[in-house]
Amino acid sequence: MSNSARSTAAARQAPVAREACGLALACDVIGDRWTLLILREAFYGVTRFEAVRSDLDAPRAILSDRLTALVQNGILDRVRYQEEGARSRHEYKLTAKGRDLGLALMALFEWGNRHIRSEPSPVQVVEAATGKALRVCAATRDGRIVEPSAATIRLRRT
Amino acid sequence: MSNSARSTAAARQAPVAREACGLALACDVIGDRWTLLILREAFYGVTRFEAVRSDLDAPRAILSDRLTALVQNGILDRVRYQEEGARSRHEYKLTAKGRDLGLALMALFEWGNRHIRSEPSPVQVVEAATGKALRVCAATRDGRIVEPSAATIRLRRT
Repeated sequence: MSNSARSTAAARQAPVAREACGLALACDVIGDRWTLLILREAFYGVTRFEAVRSDLDAPRAILSDRLTALVQNGILDRVRYQEEGARSRHEYKLTAKGRDLGLALMALFEWGNRHIRSEPSPVQVVEAATGKALRVCAATRDGRIVEPSAATIRLRRT
Repeated sequence: MSNSARSTAAARQAPVAREACGLALACDVIGDRWTLLILREAFYGVTRFEAVRSDLDAPRAILSDRLTALVQNGILDRVRYQEEGARSRHEYKLTAKGRDLGLALMALFEWGNRHIRSEPSPVQVVEAATGKALRVCAATRDGRIVEPSAATIRLRRT
């Protein structure tokens, strides 16, 4: 998206209310460092409380609080599991709504690799079937890829 | 990205260190609700302190703190401006590094519209030249669009 004169004018003519903007709503739900890191773990397939806690070095109370919110918001499912001889515990798996955050996380992943890391990342997002590297892009509904700088924001006529 | 057995195995065999993952690094820099909302304003073309404060109803100290961090992290540029008869003030414009967050914000915007809003969003991201609606997707380097569910995470051979 560009902050062109065009989008500026649109925004200033008719400011977009918080509750009308999916981005603002998304920020309310996942705009938190721990929450994003928990989702990163989920996408890496790390779903058990203790494993997430140890990977993130997260305080228990914070982790518990964020996991509860993610379950309440329908992004993670809390699933019981039990290993032999141990008491039953919970793991936290992505719901369909949670998995649908994949592109947003992938875009943040690319941005971090491009702008913050100083050396090539050891992690790559690839097509499972072919192993080909993937990148996030913007496209029209008919599948034409468009540079993000060519995008702008428009208020829909109602 | 999928949390398939394959990616799980990869993650468990060789856990990906925080500092090796662009997503974790990105979370450290922009994983904060106010920060994301400030970036949303910047993409809408709202760059002046007072305008951002009023749109977000943000406490001054928090807004000031987050703007300072965004400038320090090279995501916003602090630019002086002066209106006639008034003292000089600052506005905060996206740098190239900041503009490059466009796809991540667009992906969050789409997700919020799909999963949190109950009615169609009045805001649309379109191609400036044609007015065609855009969506975020994953693609191979040679421009073939791939469903996010077909993506997985791989550790690069070194």
